[in-house]
Amino acid sequence: MLSKNQIKFIRSLKSKKQRSIHQLFVVEGSRMVLELMESNPDELAQLIVTTDYLEKNEIPPHFKYDLTDSITFKKLTNTVSPQGIMALFNQPKMAYQEQDFMLFLDNIQDPGNMGTIIRLADWFGVKQLVCSLDCVDVFNPKVIQSSMGSIYRVPVHYLDLQDTLRQINLPVYGAYLDGENVYSQVLEPKGVLIMGNEGNGIRPELTQFISQKIMIPRFGNGESLNVSTATGILLSEFRRTTPI
Amino acid sequence: MLSKNQIKFIRSLKSKKQRSIHQLFVVEGSRMVLELMESNPDELAQLIVTTDYLEKNEIPPHFKYDLTDSITFKKLTNTVSPQGIMALFNQPKMAYQEQDFMLFLDNIQDPGNMGTIIRLADWFGVKQLVCSLDCVDVFNPKVIQSSMGSIYRVPVHYLDLQDTLRQINLPVYGAYLDGENVYSQVLEPKGVLIMGNEGNGIRPELTQFISQKIMIPRFGNGESLNVSTATGILLSEFRRTTPI
Repeated sequence: MLSKNQIKFIRSLKSKKQRSIHQLFVVEGSRMVLELMESNPDELAQLIVTTDYLEKNEIPPHFKYDLTDSITFKKLTNTVSPQGIMALFNQPKMAYQEQDFMLFLDNIQDPGNMGTIIRLADWFGVKQLVCSLDCVDVFNPKVIQSSMGSIYRVPVHYLDLQDTLRQINLPVYGAYLDGENVYSQVLEPKGVLIMGNEGNGIRPELTQFISQKIMIPRFGNGESLNVSTATGILLSEFRRTTPI
Repeated sequence: MLSKNQIKFIRSLKSKKQRSIHQLFVVEGSRMVLELMESNPDELAQLIVTTDYLEKNEIPPHFKYDLTDSITFKKLTNTVSPQGIMALFNQPKMAYQEQDFMLFLDNIQDPGNMGTIIRLADWFGVKQLVCSLDCVDVFNPKVIQSSMGSIYRVPVHYLDLQDTLRQINLPVYGAYLDGENVYSQVLEPKGVLIMGNEGNGIRPELTQFISQKIMIPRFGNGESLNVSTATGILLSEFRRTTPI
Protein backbone atom coordinates (compact mmCIF):
# COMPACT_ATOMS: atom_id res chain seq x y z
CA MET A 1 0.00 0.00 0.00
CA LEU A 2 1.03 3.60 -0.46
CA SER A 3 2.38 5.49 2.54
CA LYS A 4 0.98 8.84 3.61
CA ASN A 5 4.11 10.51 2.30
CA GLN A 6 3.80 8.80 -1.07
CA ILE A 7 0.18 9.94 -1.35
CA LYS A 8 1.24 13.46 -0.46
CA PHE A 9 4.03 13.36 -3.02
CA ILE A 10 1.83 12.13 -5.88
CA ARG A 11 -0.80 14.74 -5.06
CA SER A 12 1.89 17.44 -5.13
CA LEU A 13 2.52 16.64 -8.81
CA LYS A 14 -0.75 18.37 -9.68
CA SER A 15 1.36 21.53 -9.51
CA LYS A 16 3.57 22.48 -12.46
CA LYS A 17 6.34 23.61 -10.12
CA GLN A 18 6.52 20.25 -8.34
CA ARG A 19 6.43 18.35 -11.65
CA SER A 20 9.34 20.45 -12.81
CA ILE A 21 11.40 20.03 -9.61
CA HIS A 22 11.00 16.24 -9.70
CA GLN A 23 11.09 16.00 -13.50
CA LEU A 24 7.99 13.79 -13.48
CA PHE A 25 4.51 13.81 -14.97
CA VAL A 26 1.33 11.88 -14.25
CA VAL A 27 -0.62 9.79 -16.74
CA GLU A 28 -4.06 8.28 -16.16
CA GLY A 29 -6.33 5.88 -17.99
CA SER A 30 -5.70 2.33 -19.03
CA ARG A 31 -4.98 2.92 -22.70
CA MET A 32 -2.56 5.82 -22.26
CA VAL A 33 -0.67 4.32 -19.30
CA LEU A 34 -0.20 0.91 -20.95
CA GLU A 35 0.81 2.42 -24.29
CA LEU A 36 3.38 4.76 -22.74
CA MET A 37 4.90 2.17 -20.39
CA GLU A 38 5.22 -0.43 -23.12
CA SER A 39 6.79 1.99 -25.60
CA ASN A 40 8.97 3.72 -22.97
CA PRO A 41 9.55 1.17 -20.18
CA ASP A 42 12.72 2.91 -18.93
CA GLU A 43 10.83 6.14 -18.34
CA LEU A 44 8.24 4.62 -16.00
CA ALA A 45 8.92 5.87 -12.47
CA GLN A 46 5.91 4.43 -10.63
CA LEU A 47 2.79 2.49 -11.54
CA ILE A 48 -0.25 2.60 -9.25
CA VAL A 49 -3.34 0.42 -9.65
CA THR A 50 -6.39 -0.28 -7.55
CA THR A 51 -7.41 -3.76 -6.45
CA ASP A 52 -10.65 -3.23 -8.41
CA TYR A 53 -8.63 -2.54 -11.56
CA LEU A 54 -6.57 -5.72 -11.13
CA GLU A 55 -9.70 -7.84 -10.78
CA LYS A 56 -10.78 -6.94 -14.30
CA ASN A 57 -7.48 -6.17 -16.05
CA GLU A 58 -3.95 -7.45 -16.33
CA ILE A 59 -0.66 -5.63 -15.98
CA PRO A 60 1.92 -6.81 -18.52
CA PRO A 61 4.61 -8.99 -16.91
CA HIS A 62 7.92 -7.46 -15.71
CA PHE A 63 6.25 -4.27 -14.55
CA LYS A 64 6.19 -3.57 -10.82
CA TYR A 65 3.21 -1.76 -9.40
CA ASP A 66 1.89 -0.33 -6.16
CA LEU A 67 -1.55 -1.48 -5.10
CA THR A 68 -4.04 0.85 -3.54
CA ASP A 69 -7.75 0.98 -2.76
CA SER A 70 -10.32 3.00 -4.68
CA ILE A 71 -10.81 5.52 -1.87
CA THR A 72 -7.11 6.40 -1.75
CA PHE A 73 -6.99 6.45 -5.55
CA LYS A 74 -9.71 9.10 -5.63
CA LYS A 75 -7.37 11.37 -3.66
CA LEU A 76 -4.67 10.99 -6.29
CA THR A 77 -6.65 11.28 -9.49
CA ASN A 78 -7.37 14.28 -11.67
CA THR A 79 -10.39 12.68 -13.34
CA VAL A 80 -14.04 12.49 -12.34
CA SER A 81 -14.44 8.82 -13.25
CA PRO A 82 -11.00 7.29 -12.63
CA GLN A 83 -10.22 3.90 -14.17
CA GLY A 84 -7.98 2.85 -11.27
CA ILE A 85 -4.64 3.03 -13.07
CA MET A 86 -2.12 5.86 -12.97
CA ALA A 87 1.60 6.17 -13.61
CA LEU A 88 4.44 8.60 -12.97
CA PHE A 89 6.82 8.99 -15.87
CA ASN A 90 10.13 10.81 -16.18
CA GLN A 91 9.92 13.99 -18.19
CA PRO A 92 11.71 13.53 -21.52
CA LYS A 93 15.04 15.36 -21.59
CA MET A 94 16.24 16.64 -24.91
CA ALA A 95 18.13 19.80 -25.72
CA TYR A 96 16.79 22.24 -28.27
CA GLN A 97 18.59 22.18 -31.56
CA GLU A 98 17.79 24.00 -34.73
CA GLN A 99 16.00 21.86 -37.32
CA ASP A 100 15.10 22.38 -40.96
CA PHE A 101 11.43 22.80 -40.18
CA MET A 102 10.21 24.01 -36.80
CA LEU A 103 6.86 24.79 -35.19
CA PHE A 104 6.78 27.64 -32.66
CA LEU A 105 3.79 28.22 -30.35
CA ASP A 106 3.20 31.67 -28.91
CA ASN A 107 1.20 31.68 -25.67
CA ILE A 108 -1.08 28.71 -26.38
CA GLN A 109 -3.28 28.36 -23.30
CA ASP A 110 -5.74 25.55 -23.86
CA PRO A 111 -4.43 22.12 -22.79
CA GLY A 112 -6.57 20.35 -25.41
CA ASN A 113 -5.09 22.50 -28.17
CA MET A 114 -1.55 21.88 -26.92
CA GLY A 115 -2.07 18.11 -26.82
CA THR A 116 -3.67 18.05 -30.28
CA ILE A 117 -0.78 20.09 -31.70
CA ILE A 118 1.79 17.63 -30.25
CA ARG A 119 -0.14 14.79 -31.89
CA LEU A 120 -0.21 16.71 -35.18
CA ALA A 121 3.53 17.43 -35.00
CA ASP A 122 4.11 13.71 -34.52
CA TRP A 123 1.97 12.88 -37.56
CA PHE A 124 3.59 15.44 -39.82
CA GLY A 125 7.16 14.62 -38.74
CA VAL A 126 7.88 17.89 -36.96
CA LYS A 127 10.88 16.94 -34.82
CA GLN A 128 10.34 19.34 -31.92
CA LEU A 129 8.00 22.03 -30.63
CA VAL A 130 9.24 25.38 -29.39
CA CYS A 131 6.86 27.04 -26.92
CA SER A 132 6.96 30.54 -25.50
CA LEU A 133 7.57 30.61 -21.76
CA ASP A 134 3.91 31.50 -21.12
CA CYS A 135 2.40 28.52 -22.98
CA VAL A 136 0.41 25.96 -20.95
CA ASP A 137 2.64 23.32 -19.31
CA VAL A 138 3.03 20.34 -21.59
CA PHE A 139 2.96 18.01 -18.57
CA ASN A 140 -0.49 19.24 -17.53
CA PRO A 141 -2.64 16.04 -17.33
CA LYS A 142 -5.11 17.35 -19.93
CA VAL A 143 -2.30 17.99 -22.41
CA ILE A 144 -0.93 14.48 -21.86
CA GLN A 145 -4.43 13.09 -22.36
CA SER A 146 -4.98 14.76 -25.74
CA SER A 147 -1.43 14.17 -26.98
CA MET A 148 -2.30 10.45 -27.23
CA GLY A 149 1.15 8.99 -26.57
CA SER A 150 3.12 11.42 -28.76
CA ILE A 151 4.79 13.09 -25.76
CA TYR A 152 8.04 11.08 -25.95
CA ARG A 153 8.30 11.40 -29.72
CA VAL A 154 8.03 15.19 -29.98
CA PRO A 155 10.35 17.06 -27.61
CA VAL A 156 8.87 20.34 -26.38
CA HIS A 157 11.15 23.23 -25.44
CA TYR A 158 10.12 26.33 -23.50
CA LEU A 159 12.22 29.22 -24.74
CA ASP A 160 12.15 32.95 -25.15
CA LEU A 161 10.86 33.13 -28.72
CA GLN A 162 12.49 36.49 -29.50
CA ASP A 163 15.93 35.26 -28.42
CA THR A 164 15.48 32.02 -30.34
CA LEU A 165 14.19 33.66 -33.53
CA ARG A 166 17.11 36.12 -33.49
CA GLN A 167 19.49 33.20 -33.99
CA ILE A 168 17.59 31.51 -36.81
CA ASN A 169 18.40 32.06 -40.44
CA LEU A 170 15.31 30.53 -42.05
CA PRO A 171 12.10 31.97 -43.51
CA VAL A 172 9.61 32.55 -40.69
CA TYR A 173 5.89 32.09 -41.45
CA GLY A 174 3.27 33.47 -39.08
CA ALA A 175 -0.43 32.53 -39.07
CA TYR A 176 -2.60 35.68 -39.19
CA LEU A 177 -6.26 36.30 -40.01
CA ASP A 178 -5.14 39.00 -42.46
CA GLY A 179 -2.17 37.17 -43.98
CA GLU A 180 -1.68 36.06 -47.58
CA ASN A 181 -3.81 33.20 -48.90
CA VAL A 182 -1.69 30.16 -47.98
CA TYR A 183 -2.89 28.23 -51.04
CA SER A 184 -1.19 30.68 -53.40
CA GLN A 185 2.12 30.90 -51.50
CA VAL A 186 5.30 29.01 -52.15
CA LEU A 187 6.16 27.53 -48.76
CA GLU A 188 9.82 26.70 -48.23
CA PRO A 189 10.25 23.21 -46.73
CA LYS A 190 12.98 24.67 -44.51
CA GLY A 191 11.39 27.23 -42.26
CA VAL A 192 9.63 28.14 -39.05
CA LEU A 193 5.84 28.26 -38.61
CA ILE A 194 4.54 30.36 -35.70
CA MET A 195 1.02 29.86 -34.34
CA GLY A 196 -0.37 32.44 -31.91
CA ASN A 197 -2.59 32.58 -28.84
CA GLU A 198 -6.24 31.44 -29.07
CA GLY A 199 -7.70 34.92 -28.59
CA ASN A 200 -4.94 37.35 -29.48
CA GLY A 201 -2.83 35.66 -32.13
CA ILE A 202 0.92 36.21 -32.37
CA ARG A 203 2.25 38.89 -29.99
CA PRO A 204 3.36 42.10 -31.73
CA GLU A 205 6.97 41.78 -30.47
CA LEU A 206 7.46 38.83 -32.83
CA THR A 207 6.29 40.64 -36.00
CA GLN A 208 9.84 41.85 -36.79
CA PHE A 209 10.99 38.24 -37.25
CA ILE A 210 8.18 37.19 -39.58
CA SER A 211 9.06 37.05 -43.27
CA GLN A 212 5.61 35.93 -44.48
CA LYS A 213 2.15 36.28 -42.95
CA ILE A 214 -0.14 33.46 -44.07
CA MET A 215 -3.83 32.70 -43.57
CA ILE A 216 -6.32 29.96 -44.36
CA PRO A 217 -8.97 31.53 -46.62
CA ARG A 218 -12.54 31.58 -45.41
CA PHE A 219 -15.19 30.25 -47.81
CA GLY A 220 -18.22 30.52 -45.49
CA ASN A 221 -19.27 32.63 -42.51
CA GLY A 222 -17.37 31.10 -39.61
CA GLU A 223 -15.74 33.63 -37.33
CA SER A 224 -12.53 31.77 -36.63
CA LEU A 225 -10.80 28.42 -36.66
CA ASN A 226 -9.58 26.64 -33.57
CA VAL A 227 -5.77 27.05 -33.30
CA SER A 228 -5.11 23.30 -33.33
CA THR A 229 -7.27 22.83 -36.44
CA ALA A 230 -5.50 25.74 -38.14
CA THR A 231 -2.12 24.22 -37.20
CA GLY A 232 -3.17 20.93 -38.81
CA ILE A 233 -4.21 22.62 -42.04
CA LEU A 234 -1.01 24.69 -42.24
CA LEU A 235 1.29 21.74 -41.45
CA SER A 236 -0.51 19.85 -44.19
CA GLU A 237 0.17 22.75 -46.58
CA PHE A 238 3.88 22.68 -45.72
CA ARG A 239 4.09 18.92 -46.22
CA ARG A 240 1.86 18.37 -49.25
CA THR A 241 4.69 18.87 -51.75
CA THR A 242 7.30 17.00 -49.65
CA PRO A 243 8.09 13.47 -50.82
CA ILE A 244 7.19 10.99 -48.05
CA MET B 1 -38.00 34.43 -10.02
CA LEU B 2 -38.31 31.02 -11.63
CA SER B 3 -41.11 28.73 -10.50
CA LYS B 4 -40.48 25.15 -9.39
CA ASN B 5 -42.02 23.94 -12.63
CA GLN B 6 -39.79 26.18 -14.71
CA ILE B 7 -36.71 24.88 -12.89
CA LYS B 8 -37.86 21.32 -13.47
CA PHE B 9 -38.48 22.04 -17.14
CA ILE B 10 -35.06 23.60 -17.74
CA ARG B 11 -33.34 20.73 -15.95
CA SER B 12 -35.25 18.26 -18.12
CA LEU B 13 -33.52 19.71 -21.17
CA LYS B 14 -30.32 17.96 -20.13
CA SER B 15 -31.88 14.95 -21.85
CA LYS B 16 -31.72 14.66 -25.62
CA LYS B 17 -35.27 13.31 -25.75
CA GLN B 18 -36.71 16.33 -23.93
CA ARG B 19 -34.71 18.75 -26.09
CA SER B 20 -36.13 17.06 -29.15
CA ILE B 21 -39.76 17.04 -27.89
CA HIS B 22 -39.61 20.74 -27.05
CA GLN B 23 -37.33 21.66 -29.98
CA LEU B 24 -35.07 23.66 -27.66
CA PHE B 25 -31.43 23.68 -26.65
CA VAL B 26 -29.50 25.26 -23.78
CA VAL B 27 -26.56 27.63 -24.13
CA GLU B 28 -24.30 28.80 -21.31
CA GLY B 29 -21.55 31.33 -20.86
CA SER B 30 -21.61 35.04 -21.45
CA ARG B 31 -19.86 35.15 -24.82
CA MET B 32 -21.85 32.36 -26.46
CA VAL B 33 -25.25 33.44 -25.12
CA LEU B 34 -24.81 37.09 -26.09
CA GLU B 35 -23.45 36.25 -29.52
CA LEU B 36 -26.26 33.84 -30.34
CA MET B 37 -29.07 36.07 -29.04
CA GLU B 38 -27.78 39.11 -30.90
CA SER B 39 -27.33 37.26 -34.18
CA ASN B 40 -30.55 35.23 -33.82
CA PRO B 41 -32.89 37.30 -31.59
CA ASP B 42 -36.03 35.56 -32.90
CA GLU B 43 -34.74 32.18 -31.83
CA LEU B 44 -34.26 33.11 -28.17
CA ALA B 45 -36.91 31.31 -26.10
CA GLN B 46 -35.80 32.25 -22.58
CA LEU B 47 -32.89 34.11 -21.01
CA ILE B 48 -31.94 33.44 -17.39
CA VAL B 49 -29.39 35.45 -15.42
CA THR B 50 -28.35 35.59 -11.78
CA THR B 51 -28.44 38.77 -9.72
CA ASP B 52 -24.65 38.39 -9.31
CA TYR B 53 -24.23 38.37 -13.09
CA LEU B 54 -26.32 41.54 -13.48
CA GLU B 55 -24.21 43.39 -10.93
CA LYS B 56 -21.12 43.05 -13.11
CA ASN B 57 -22.59 42.79 -16.63
CA GLU B 58 -25.26 44.30 -18.81
CA ILE B 59 -27.93 42.65 -20.88
CA PRO B 60 -28.44 44.40 -24.23
CA PRO B 61 -31.69 46.43 -24.29
CA HIS B 62 -34.92 44.92 -25.71
CA PHE B 63 -34.14 41.48 -24.31
CA LYS B 64 -36.38 40.16 -21.53
CA TYR B 65 -34.79 37.94 -18.91
CA ASP B 66 -35.69 35.91 -15.85
CA LEU B 67 -33.74 36.66 -12.72
CA THR B 68 -32.61 33.95 -10.37
CA ASP B 69 -30.18 33.47 -7.50
CA SER B 70 -26.85 31.65 -7.72
CA ILE B 71 -28.08 28.66 -5.70
CA THR B 72 -30.98 27.99 -8.06
CA PHE B 73 -28.71 28.60 -11.04
CA LYS B 74 -26.38 25.85 -9.88
CA LYS B 75 -29.28 23.41 -10.20
CA LEU B 76 -29.79 24.40 -13.83
CA THR B 77 -26.25 24.55 -15.10
CA ASN B 78 -24.13 21.93 -16.84
CA THR B 79 -20.86 23.61 -15.96
CA VAL B 80 -18.63 23.41 -12.89
CA SER B 81 -17.96 27.16 -12.72
CA PRO B 82 -21.12 28.75 -14.11
CA GLN B 83 -20.99 32.41 -15.20
CA GLY B 84 -24.61 33.07 -14.19
CA ILE B 85 -26.10 33.39 -17.67
CA MET B 86 -27.95 30.76 -19.65
CA ALA B 87 -30.45 30.77 -22.49
CA LEU B 88 -32.91 28.46 -24.18
CA PHE B 89 -32.97 28.71 -27.94
CA ASN B 90 -35.24 27.17 -30.55
CA GLN B 91 -33.63 24.37 -32.51
CA PRO B 92 -33.00 25.51 -36.08
CA LYS B 93 -35.46 23.94 -38.53
CA MET B 94 -34.25 23.30 -42.04
CA ALA B 95 -35.02 20.46 -44.37
CA TYR B 96 -32.25 18.41 -45.92
CA GLN B 97 -31.62 19.15 -49.54
CA GLU B 98 -28.92 17.86 -51.81
CA GLN B 99 -26.04 20.31 -52.28
CA ASP B 100 -23.04 20.38 -54.59
CA PHE B 101 -20.63 19.60 -51.78
CA MET B 102 -21.69 17.74 -48.66
CA LEU B 103 -20.03 16.51 -45.48
CA PHE B 104 -21.37 13.26 -43.98
CA LEU B 105 -20.44 12.10 -40.47
CA ASP B 106 -20.66 8.43 -39.59
CA ASN B 107 -21.12 7.75 -35.86
CA ILE B 108 -19.07 10.66 -34.49
CA GLN B 109 -19.30 10.34 -30.70
CA ASP B 110 -17.18 13.04 -29.12
CA PRO B 111 -19.08 16.31 -28.53
CA GLY B 112 -15.89 18.37 -28.90
CA ASN B 113 -15.20 16.82 -32.30
CA MET B 114 -18.78 17.44 -33.44
CA GLY B 115 -18.67 21.09 -32.37
CA THR B 116 -15.29 21.65 -34.01
CA ILE B 117 -16.53 20.06 -37.25
CA ILE B 118 -19.58 22.37 -37.31
CA ARG B 119 -17.23 25.34 -36.88
CA LEU B 120 -15.01 24.02 -39.68
CA ALA B 121 -18.00 23.51 -41.99
CA ASP B 122 -18.99 27.11 -41.34
CA TRP B 123 -15.46 28.34 -42.19
CA PHE B 124 -15.17 26.30 -45.38
CA GLY B 125 -18.67 27.13 -46.61
CA VAL B 126 -20.16 23.66 -46.28
CA LYS B 127 -23.89 24.39 -46.33
CA GLN B 128 -25.11 21.51 -44.19
CA LEU B 129 -23.92 18.50 -42.23
CA VAL B 130 -25.46 15.08 -42.62
CA CYS B 131 -25.03 12.86 -39.54
CA SER B 132 -25.78 9.18 -39.13
CA LEU B 133 -28.58 8.52 -36.65
CA ASP B 134 -26.06 7.31 -34.03
CA CYS B 135 -23.91 10.46 -34.01
CA VAL B 136 -23.77 12.51 -30.78
CA ASP B 137 -26.70 14.95 -30.45
CA VAL B 138 -25.76 18.30 -31.92
CA PHE B 139 -27.73 20.06 -29.17
CA ASN B 140 -25.59 18.48 -26.44
CA PRO B 141 -24.24 21.46 -24.42
CA LYS B 142 -20.61 20.48 -25.10
CA VAL B 143 -21.24 20.44 -28.85
CA ILE B 144 -22.85 23.86 -28.68
CA GLN B 145 -19.89 25.12 -26.64
CA SER B 146 -17.27 24.03 -29.16
CA SER B 147 -19.31 25.03 -32.22
CA MET B 148 -18.72 28.67 -31.23
CA GLY B 149 -21.88 30.20 -32.62
CA SER B 150 -21.93 28.32 -35.93
CA ILE B 151 -24.98 26.26 -34.96
CA TYR B 152 -27.54 28.46 -36.78
CA ARG B 153 -25.37 28.80 -39.90
CA VAL B 154 -24.77 25.11 -40.57
CA PRO B 155 -27.95 23.00 -40.52
CA VAL B 156 -27.35 19.49 -39.22
CA HIS B 157 -29.54 16.62 -40.43
CA TYR B 158 -29.77 13.18 -38.84
CA LEU B 159 -30.45 10.68 -41.58
CA ASP B 160 -29.91 7.06 -42.50
CA LEU B 161 -26.68 7.43 -44.45
CA GLN B 162 -27.26 4.37 -46.64
CA ASP B 163 -30.69 5.59 -47.75
CA THR B 164 -29.34 9.08 -48.37
CA LEU B 165 -26.25 7.95 -50.29
CA ARG B 166 -28.39 5.70 -52.49
CA GLN B 167 -30.13 8.81 -53.84
CA ILE B 168 -27.00 10.83 -54.54
CA ASN B 169 -25.35 10.97 -57.92
CA LEU B 170 -22.02 12.56 -56.97
CA PRO B 171 -18.52 11.21 -56.33
CA VAL B 172 -18.29 9.99 -52.73
CA TYR B 173 -14.95 10.35 -50.92
CA GLY B 174 -14.28 8.43 -47.73
CA ALA B 175 -11.46 9.12 -45.25
CA TYR B 176 -9.49 5.92 -44.54
CA LEU B 177 -6.09 5.24 -43.00
CA ASP B 178 -5.28 3.07 -46.04
CA GLY B 179 -6.77 5.31 -48.73
CA GLU B 180 -4.98 7.05 -51.59
CA ASN B 181 -2.69 9.96 -50.78
CA VAL B 182 -5.09 12.91 -50.86
CA TYR B 183 -2.37 15.28 -52.12
CA SER B 184 -2.09 13.38 -55.42
CA GLN B 185 -5.83 13.03 -56.04
CA VAL B 186 -8.01 15.20 -58.20
CA LEU B 187 -10.89 16.12 -55.89
CA GLU B 188 -14.14 17.06 -57.61
CA PRO B 189 -15.62 20.26 -56.14
CA LYS B 190 -19.03 18.59 -56.39
CA GLY B 191 -19.02 15.59 -54.12
CA VAL B 192 -19.60 14.04 -50.73
CA LEU B 193 -16.91 13.61 -48.07
CA ILE B 194 -17.58 10.97 -45.40
CA MET B 195 -15.69 11.01 -42.07
CA GLY B 196 -15.95 7.98 -39.80
CA ASN B 197 -16.12 7.17 -36.10
CA GLU B 198 -13.19 8.12 -33.81
CA GLY B 199 -12.14 4.53 -33.14
CA ASN B 200 -13.59 2.45 -35.96
CA GLY B 201 -13.70 4.70 -39.00
CA ILE B 202 -16.45 4.43 -41.60
CA ARG B 203 -18.80 1.47 -41.07
CA PRO B 204 -18.39 -1.32 -43.65
CA GLU B 205 -22.02 -1.00 -44.86
CA LEU B 206 -21.11 2.34 -46.47
CA THR B 207 -18.12 1.04 -48.48
CA GLN B 208 -20.32 0.19 -51.48
CA PHE B 209 -21.17 3.89 -51.93
CA ILE B 210 -17.59 5.16 -51.81
CA SER B 211 -15.99 5.97 -55.13
CA GLN B 212 -12.61 7.07 -53.73
CA LYS B 213 -10.84 6.27 -50.45
CA ILE B 214 -8.53 9.07 -49.42
CA MET B 215 -6.00 9.53 -46.60
CA ILE B 216 -3.72 12.20 -45.19
CA PRO B 217 -0.16 10.90 -45.54
CA ARG B 218 1.89 10.42 -42.40
CA PHE B 219 5.36 11.96 -42.35
CA GLY B 220 6.31 11.13 -38.75
CA ASN B 221 5.39 8.46 -36.18
CA GLY B 222 2.02 9.60 -34.87
CA GLU B 223 -0.53 6.82 -34.58
CA SER B 224 -3.57 8.73 -35.73
CA LEU B 225 -5.12 12.12 -36.26
CA ASN B 226 -8.08 13.42 -34.35
CA VAL B 227 -11.20 13.19 -36.57
CA SER B 228 -11.93 16.92 -36.36
CA THR B 229 -8.34 17.80 -37.31
CA ALA B 230 -8.49 15.33 -40.21
CA THR B 231 -11.81 16.86 -41.33
CA GLY B 232 -10.18 20.32 -41.34
CA ILE B 233 -7.26 19.15 -43.46
CA LEU B 234 -9.51 17.35 -45.96
CA LEU B 235 -11.99 20.24 -46.26
CA SER B 236 -8.99 22.48 -46.92
CA GLU B 237 -7.86 20.07 -49.68
CA PHE B 238 -11.30 20.22 -51.31
CA ARG B 239 -11.37 24.02 -51.18
CA ARG B 240 -7.79 24.95 -52.02
CA THR B 241 -8.41 25.06 -55.76
CA THR B 242 -11.86 26.69 -55.45
CA PRO B 243 -11.98 30.41 -56.20
CA ILE B 244 -13.14 32.33 -53.12
